[in-house]
Amino acid sequence: MGNSIATVCLSGDLGERLDAAAAAGFEAIELFEHDLTTSDLTPEEVRRRCAALGLRIEMLQPFRDLDSTSPERFARNLRRADGKFALMERLGIDMLLVVSSVAEDAVADTGLLAEQLAVLGSRAAGCGLRIAYEALAWGRHVNTWEASWEAVRRSDHPAVGLCVDSYHVLAVDGNPDGIAGVPAAKLFSVQLADAPRLPMHVLQLSRHHRVFPGQGALDVPRFVDAVRRSGFRGPLSLEVFNDDFRAGDPRATASAGRRSLDLLRAGGLQGRGETRWSRVQLTGAPGALADVDHTLAGLGFVDAGGRSRRHGDAVVVLEPGEGPARIARTVLHDSAGIRSRTPGPDGTELVVEPLTAPAAPSGRWSIDHVALQVPTGRLAECELAHRTAGFVPQRAEEIGTPAGLLRRQPLATHDRGARVLLSSLLVTGPAAVATPQQTVAFGCTDVLGAARAARAAGVPVLPVPANYYEDLACRTELPPALISVLREFDVLYDLSDGGALLRFGTIAFGAVGFELVQRVGAEDGYGELSAPVRIAALHRRQRADLRRATA
Amino acid sequence: MGNSIATVCLSGDLGERLDAAAAAGFEAIELFEHDLTTSDLTPEEVRRRCAALGLRIEMLQPFRDLDSTSPERFARNLRRADGKFALMERLGIDMLLVVSSVAEDAVADTGLLAEQLAVLGSRAAGCGLRIAYEALAWGRHVNTWEASWEAVRRSDHPAVGLCVDSYHVLAVDGNPDGIAGVPAAKLFSVQLADAPRLPMHVLQLSRHHRVFPGQGALDVPRFVDAVRRSGFRGPLSLEVFNDDFRAGDPRATASAGRRSLDLLRAGGLQGRGETRWSRVQLTGAPGALADVDHTLAGLGFVDAGGRSRRHGDAVVVLEPGEGPARIARTVLHDSAGIRSRTPGPDGTELVVEPLTAPAAPSGRWSIDHVALQVPTGRLAECELAHRTAGFVPQRAEEIGTPAGLLRRQPLATHDRGARVLLSSLLVTGPAAVATPQQTVAFGCTDVLGAARAARAAGVPVLPVPANYYEDLACRTELPPALISVLREFDVLYDLSDGGALLRFGTIAFGAVGFELVQRVGAEDGYGELSAPVRIAALHRRQRADLRRATA
Repeated sequence: MGNSIATVCLSGDLGERLDAAAAAGFEAIELFEHDLTTSDLTPEEVRRRCAALGLRIEMLQPFRDLDSTSPERFARNLRRADGKFALMERLGIDMLLVVSSVAEDAVADTGLLAEQLAVLGSRAAGCGLRIAYEALAWGRHVNTWEASWEAVRRSDHPAVGLCVDSYHVLAVDGNPDGIAGVPAAKLFSVQLADAPRLPMHVLQLSRHHRVFPGQGALDVPRFVDAVRRSGFRGPLSLEVFNDDFRAGDPRATASAGRRSLDLLRAGGLQGRGETRWSRVQLTGAPGALADVDHTLAGLGFVDAGGRSRRHGDAVVVLEPGEGPARIARTVLHDSAGIRSRTPGPDGTELVVEPLTAPAAPSGRWSIDHVALQVPTGRLAECELAHRTAGFVPQRAEEIGTPAGLLRRQPLATHDRGARVLLSSLLVTGPAAVATPQQTVAFGCTDVLGAARAARAAGVPVLPVPANYYEDLACRTELPPALISVLREFDVLYDLSDGGALLRFGTIAFGAVGFELVQRVGAEDGYGELSAPVRIAALHRRQRADLRRATA
Repeated sequence: MGNSIATVCLSGDLGERLDAAAAAGFEAIELFEHDLTTSDLTPEEVRRRCAALGLRIEMLQPFRDLDSTSPERFARNLRRADGKFALMERLGIDMLLVVSSVAEDAVADTGLLAEQLAVLGSRAAGCGLRIAYEALAWGRHVNTWEASWEAVRRSDHPAVGLCVDSYHVLAVDGNPDGIAGVPAAKLFSVQLADAPRLPMHVLQLSRHHRVFPGQGALDVPRFVDAVRRSGFRGPLSLEVFNDDFRAGDPRATASAGRRSLDLLRAGGLQGRGETRWSRVQLTGAPGALADVDHTLAGLGFVDAGGRSRRHGDAVVVLEPGEGPARIARTVLHDSAGIRSRTPGPDGTELVVEPLTAPAAPSGRWSIDHVALQVPTGRLAECELAHRTAGFVPQRAEEIGTPAGLLRRQPLATHDRGARVLLSSLLVTGPAAVATPQQTVAFGCTDVLGAARAARAAGVPVLPVPANYYEDLACRTELPPALISVLREFDVLYDLSDGGALLRFGTIAFGAVGFELVQRVGAEDGYGELSAPVRIAALHRRQRADLRRATA
C-alpha cells in the first residue's frame, strides 16, 4: 500500500501543491478538480509536471450528483461525465471518483442507482477508465459505506468499484469491519482522514476540521486494518479538508501527512514500554540562564556535571545561546522507543531516546509534565509529533485568558510516565504577548514543604490573587486552615473526581517558568479550574516585563 | 434603558476591560466572575475603579447549579451563595445572576425549583440583594424563558426576578413575544447577543460565535421590542462570548458593541430610502495612481474635474498619497441616511452622505459593488459597520483559495442600490499575500461589448485559465459559440436560479482591481462558482508582483 495525498489537503497553487507532495515522498496524488480549474497549468502541463516529480495521479475527484430520477437529467449528467473523461485522458488519469448524490433528484432505489452506475461504468470502460463510487456521510440516500457497496455490487460492472473513506465511516460512528469482506478487486480506492470530536454537524466538521490520521479521535487504525484484511494493495490516500492546512506551509503539511501514514503503517502508536521525561534543555543568553540557574538552586537543584542541574530524577540542562530563556528540547526516554528528533512549530524539538536505566525509586522529584504554548493554528501539528512518540491525547480544555480563549491539549504516555500539555490561543490578537508560556512542572510528594523551602530560599514565586482563595473557600469544603496555608504559599488546589492536584509556580524567566506539582490519589489532570488564574498571573507578569523592556 | 456590557465580551485583564467599557460610553457592566477571580484587583479596588470610571456594576454572574434534588447538596449550594453575597457586598453589587442548572441533580419539578429559588431569595433579601434567574438554552430541565419565568413566578419572592437573554431565546427558535407580558417589576435583567446561523450545537455556538446585535442572524429587534413592551426600564446589557472579541482590541470591541446598541435603539436598520454608491476614493503614490488612471481611461472613464473620473454614474476619485494603490474610502448616498464616517479594520473608511439627486437613467455604468478583503478575524466588525449604514447581509460563502479558505460575506441595501462584498481568510498562514484584494466592480448592460472595447484600448485584463472554460462547457448547456467568446475575452459566467452574472476584471494595481459586471435577470449574487478562479488568478499575479518587487 503506497502513499497518496489529495491536492486539497495543501495550500498554494497547484504547482506548489505537487512540489510539496513530491518533496514529502508521496508516490501519488488525488487531483481535486477545483485545484485544476483554478490553475493556469493545462492538463498536459499537470501531467508532465507530475511525471517529472515521480507522482502518479491516482484519480480525479469529485464528480457530484450523477444519478437522477429524471432520465433527462441523468442524460445530462452523463454528458458532463463524458467531458471529464476527455479531461482525464489529457491528464493520464484512469479513475474518476463519483460521490453519492446530495441532490433532490437523487435516486433512492438501489436497483436504479446500480443501473445508472453501470451505464456510467460502460461509458468509462469504453475510454479505458474506471469509476470509484463513495458514500458521503451526508449523501441524500447513500450515506454509509454499506449502501455504496450494495450499489456497486449490484451494478456488477468491472469498471465500477468502491471507494471508502475513513472519515465518512467513522465520523458518524459507522462500523468499518465489514470492509474486510469486500473483494480486493472491487475496492478501487481508500481515503484516510481523522477528525476531532466536536459538537458540530458532520458536514461542517468535514469541511473545516479533518486532520491526518492520529491527529483526531477516530479509530483510523481499525479502519485500515479492515482495508488490509480485504486484500487491498492500492495506496492509502490522505484526503483532509482543514482550515489550518489550507492556509499553512504546504511542505510542512505534506511532511506531517507523510509522517502520519508512516506511523499508521508502523502499527499505530509506539511507546508501549516504560517511559519518562529524561531531561528538558533550556537555552538563552548567559545572563538569562543565570537567573534560571539561581532559581533552580533555590528549588534545591544541584550541579550534576557540565550544564545539567538535577533534583532527584528531574534534570534540566542549561545550554548557553541567545535571547530570553526558553525551552529548546524535551527528551523522552522510552524502553520501547525508537531514536527520533522532531522539530515542532513552537520552536522546541522533541527527542526520543531508548530508556535503559530501571524505574526511579518513588518520592524523588521528577518531571511531571512540560507545558508548551504553540502558535495559533499549529496545535494539531504539534500534537501529531507527540503522538508519533507514543503520547495519547487526554481531554482537551478551553480556558479564558486575558489574551483570548486558550485551547489546552494534554497528552500522556500509556504508563503516565511522561506528560505534555500543549496549548494554543484560538485567535491571536493585540492582547497576546509575543513570548509564549512554557512551564517545566516537577512532580513531588510534598508540595507545601517544597513551597515553604522555596520561600525560605527566596525563590520568586508567582503570586496568586486573593480572589482565587476566596472563591475556593466558597466552592469547596476545604478546611479554612488549609486554605490559609495554600494562600500563604501561593499554592493552587484543584479537586477532581480522581483526586487532587496541588501546585505552585515561579515567575517566568523569558518564556520559561517552573512549577512544583503534587498529584494526590488518581489525579490525572492539569489543574483546569485554577489554570486561568495562573495563566492570567503569568500574562500580567510578561506584560509588565515587556513594558519594562520597552520603557 | 441604559447601556451595559459584560466583562467577558472583552480581552485584557479586568482593569483594561473596565477602562474599555467606560471609554466606549457604557454606564454599567456585568461582572463575569471568572474575570474577577483571575484578577489581582481586590473587590474593593474593582468597586473604586468602576466608581471612578462612572460604571455601575449591574450584576455578578453567573452562579451555576443552585437547585438540587439532594437537600444536602442544596444546603451546600446555599453556603456557596452566601460566600458570593459577601463578595457582592464588597463589590457594591445588588444583583446575582443564577443560571438554570445543567447538573445531574437539577430539580425537574417546577414547584420544588420555585421553593429553592424563594429560599435563596430570602437569604439574598436579608443582605439587601436580589436574584435574577435565567434559562440557559442547554439547561437540564429549565431551558426556555417560559420555564424560567414559571419558576420565578411560582417562587413568588420580591427578591427573585427574571433575566432574559436574546441568545438563549432566539438561537433555539424560541418566541420572545410573550416577554411583553412579564410585569416590569419582575424583569430584573435583559442580556443581548446575536449569533450567525451555523450548523453546530447551541452551546458550542454560544461559547465561540456570539456577536453583537445586528452582526448575526437572530431577530434581536423583535426581542427588544417585547422587552420594551413589558415596561422594562433597566439597561440593555451585551453578553457576548466570541473568540475574536476575546483576542481583539478591547476598546475597538467595546466601541463596536456600543454602536450596535445605538443602532438597535435607533429603530434597527436605517437606509430605507433610495441608495447608491456615490464614489470610491483610491489613494497611493502618484506613480501607482497613474497606472490606475491609464486603465480607467482605457475603460472609457473621463475626467470629471479635479481628481474625479467618471463613466456614467460610476465615479472614482484618485487622491495622491503613498504606497501602492488601494481603496481609501467608499461613499454611500442614501436619501434617508444620516451623515457618518466609520473607519474599518481593513483600512478603508465607509462614508454615508444624504442623497439629493434623483435616480440615474438606466443603461449607464454605475458602481455595482465594492469588494474589500478584511484581516482574518475582523469580518464581523466590518460587517457591523456596513449594517449600521443600512446594508443587510446576504448569503455568506466559503471559497477555497491558494492562501486558504476565504469567507465571503456580501451585503446589500434594501433597494439593491449599493452592494459590498466583504471577504476574509479564515486562517492567515504563510500562503497569504500581504496585499489585500480589493475590487471596484462597475455595473453595465453589455459586458461583452465592454470587454471588446477594453481589449481594443489595451486594458490589462486578468487572464482566465482555459481549464475554467472547459469545465464550464461540461457543466452547463451554454452554446459552444458563447463559451468561445467568453473565453476569448476572459469573461466569467455564473448561472444561478435567478439569472446570470457575467464579468471580467483587470489585473490588480497594488490592492485594487476593477471589474465590469452584467446582471442578467434577477441575478443577486457575486459569482460564487467562478470566484475561486478569479481569486486564484489575482493571487498568482500578486505573488508574481511581489517576487518582482523583491528580486
